[in-house]
Amino acid sequence: MMTDNSLKLYEQVVHYLVVRIEAGEWKEHEKLPSVRSLSELLGVHRLTVFKAYQELKERGNVYVKDKSGYYVSPADPSPVTDQADDPAVSAWLHWDSLARVQSLEAEFQFSKSLIDPALLPNRYWGELMRDLLDLYPRLLGTYSTIQGDLELRSALASHLTTRERFYLSADEVLITSGAQQAIDVISRSLVRPGDRVLMERPTYGPAMEIFRKQGAKLIFTDIHPDGYDLEQIERLMKQEKPRVFYMTPTFQNPTGINIPTEQRKQLPELAEQYGCFLVEDDSTYDIYFKEKPPAPIFTYDTTGHTLYIRSYSKYVVPGLRIAAIMCRPRFMPGLQAVKALTDNGSPLLNQKLFLRYFQSPRMHQHLSKLRTALQLRMEVMEQCLQQTDWTWTRPEGGLNIWAELPEGVDTGRLLHRCMEHSVAFVPGTVFDPSDADASRKLRLSFSYAHEQQIREGMSRLIALAENT
Amino acid sequence: MMTDNSLKLYEQVVHYLVVRIEAGEWKEHEKLPSVRSLSELLGVHRLTVFKAYQELKERGNVYVKDKSGYYVSPADPSPVTDQADDPAVSAWLHWDSLARVQSLEAEFQFSKSLIDPALLPNRYWGELMRDLLDLYPRLLGTYSTIQGDLELRSALASHLTTRERFYLSADEVLITSGAQQAIDVISRSLVRPGDRVLMERPTYGPAMEIFRKQGAKLIFTDIHPDGYDLEQIERLMKQEKPRVFYMTPTFQNPTGINIPTEQRKQLPELAEQYGCFLVEDDSTYDIYFKEKPPAPIFTYDTTGHTLYIRSYSKYVVPGLRIAAIMCRPRFMPGLQAVKALTDNGSPLLNQKLFLRYFQSPRMHQHLSKLRTALQLRMEVMEQCLQQTDWTWTRPEGGLNIWAELPEGVDTGRLLHRCMEHSVAFVPGTVFDPSDADASRKLRLSFSYAHEQQIREGMSRLIALAENT
Repeated sequence: MMTDNSLKLYEQVVHYLVVRIEAGEWKEHEKLPSVRSLSELLGVHRLTVFKAYQELKERGNVYVKDKSGYYVSPADPSPVTDQADDPAVSAWLHWDSLARVQSLEAEFQFSKSLIDPALLPNRYWGELMRDLLDLYPRLLGTYSTIQGDLELRSALASHLTTRERFYLSADEVLITSGAQQAIDVISRSLVRPGDRVLMERPTYGPAMEIFRKQGAKLIFTDIHPDGYDLEQIERLMKQEKPRVFYMTPTFQNPTGINIPTEQRKQLPELAEQYGCFLVEDDSTYDIYFKEKPPAPIFTYDTTGHTLYIRSYSKYVVPGLRIAAIMCRPRFMPGLQAVKALTDNGSPLLNQKLFLRYFQSPRMHQHLSKLRTALQLRMEVMEQCLQQTDWTWTRPEGGLNIWAELPEGVDTGRLLHRCMEHSVAFVPGTVFDPSDADASRKLRLSFSYAHEQQIREGMSRLIALAENT
Repeated sequence: MMTDNSLKLYEQVVHYLVVRIEAGEWKEHEKLPSVRSLSELLGVHRLTVFKAYQELKERGNVYVKDKSGYYVSPADPSPVTDQADDPAVSAWLHWDSLARVQSLEAEFQFSKSLIDPALLPNRYWGELMRDLLDLYPRLLGTYSTIQGDLELRSALASHLTTRERFYLSADEVLITSGAQQAIDVISRSLVRPGDRVLMERPTYGPAMEIFRKQGAKLIFTDIHPDGYDLEQIERLMKQEKPRVFYMTPTFQNPTGINIPTEQRKQLPELAEQYGCFLVEDDSTYDIYFKEKPPAPIFTYDTTGHTLYIRSYSKYVVPGLRIAAIMCRPRFMPGLQAVKALTDNGSPLLNQKLFLRYFQSPRMHQHLSKLRTALQLRMEVMEQCLQQTDWTWTRPEGGLNIWAELPEGVDTGRLLHRCMEHSVAFVPGTVFDPSDADASRKLRLSFSYAHEQQIREGMSRLIALAENT
């Protein structure tokens, strides 16, 4: 061990001990090796080990008991002390963060609104990747521009213009690493501390975290099976002057509701009238079960108040994390400045590989198959729910069912018990901390588990919920 | 064009015109098509086109002149009006942002501290990529964990522990998309509005932008060829209580200076004494010309006050954008919470491909060749500088030469003139807006242009500087 001349010997022993204590090799209140044994093990003088222990004692890492030896002190009540009141850290530590809940390991996984990798064309992607460097020989040595690869931006703009009436040029597209980053970049570009941000209730939890972290005050408008209450929205825009209205109007997350076309047409007018920007987050556009969803609000906005996020990460090629912000050019300097600070541009490899798939006929064939597979899983999950007295609305698309349990059930507590049986879902309060009833709700994603897992996992979940 | 029933006809004409005006098809004050010709072109009634023009007139997009027709109004003085006082946007618009300067296109490129793609083992990477999906068949369908791929974190921890005495476990590593994102995630995790942040003068410009955007007040300590003034640092830590000291102590950016070992040992002690966290950004660790740089400050820190950023993006595999934060576990909840909001985890493809290269013997062979090639380019650039009366210190490693021009030269203005001759560099004020002399300085990267380009570009640059 001792080949290093730049650290003093006893400091190296300190190092040796500290990293192993932190790695859990010795637990709290566990006895540490004796001076003698450690000196033999490390080939250093006993006095050196003694000095190291003295140092650790002074620092509070170890304590001495009954003269019998050195013991590990209880750990620092981490995290970094004054971060506990940071809403993002607090949400993380208390499982109120969607990202944290989704990172829980479970056999029956209904918390991840991600596609089961078995449903994805992995072999075909392998073929696309195999000769990618023949097409772009210096791809791995090259940085993307901050706004994103021009070839990809042009392809997206052209596709959305000809197929979906977006009327975009490549200058009006910025590539991000997932919709998550798109929301974050928009928030840091447009929202300042103290600004009001209007949100749907319930809404995508991480978006609330992002705007809160940016210092915004959140205000809410309820979403119903038949859409928004536009009068309430107009009143809020008039009174509270929100800087931004963040929305997921297509297969709304978590409810699966579609905002009807008539409201989509009116929203840009309200936005213009009250100087509010619409952030339209569209992460599952192609995942519909009966018919295509209504056209995005962006396509009705003739005054450039809408920033549209189209994500290809959740359901097209998850591993590449490609999403895009579409908006008028006046937003671009601000968005690019933030994107530059955030990560200096998304990796070029991911953009070019996505482009190849996006331009292949296989993508649309695959999306069609995927819709069928997901609808089947959704129906299996609904069959399970039909045995309960829970309420839910059948989603017209997307990856989730939003359900409400009978009074008296707290889905946050239920999750902790379900985790013991390897069943994960997202408690309702993650999407709506402001509503008392939210603690009776939960979001069930049917996209990650296969049919059999859905049946078994739902049966466990229902049994646990009924024994609360 | 007119197949869409959801937008009214005249709205579609408005759309048609707006996007083409924005795309520059008609310039400001240029005459637009007549009502008659447009109605024929689009196959709609003249009154519909008339109504569209009225709408655009009301909105201020077009104006009427001498009854002779419709003209394009001057563009909105974009960006979004109240963003002009955002320091990041302002820097972006005024070429004070490093990212913006580096995005300038030039034939003689001395502004990019990136490796010339011709110096990178592109063919070998192609081989690694070719069978990557055989090893990880579902790689493109899978999200990474937020902290980063465990296999990669373990490999990094183990390498740094055995080779560089970091004594890390995989739990103490978080993968980011480049050092840029690492700084941003640390800043958003640790720094609150009003906090002081201590920085080297001069320093990496985007780090200043990040901490400013987070609302921090920056304070500076000068860096000299023989290192820091530790007494000044201690005084500043005592008086100003900075939350963070951001530093690039190895081949400092932009000066190329190495902080000596003695100071590296004392800094963690100061940090502990005054409750300051050290953010040690190490982006060119392997790019040394004579001998290895001193061991990182992190390895001398036994109290866990240092967050260490090792980037493999600039010089190992630029296109993958892999970097890592190494720090003690108590920082991880905060860092993970921010990383989740930022992008929900770096793409898995990039991490696994990097891992393969990192574990191959080729990486170290390649780094050795790269050092030789870069030293040669540095020496060519120095030869050019020897014909001037500029001053500079020969860098011991890294990618840049930091030079000072005679009095009277403003390198910001010089850049604008150089751009007309396709020569790009970074003006000194990007790294040090607080020092009046900074406007005489510039950073020249020798890593992106080849020898001949360096000779020709430097000759143009020197000629232009002398004719100021």
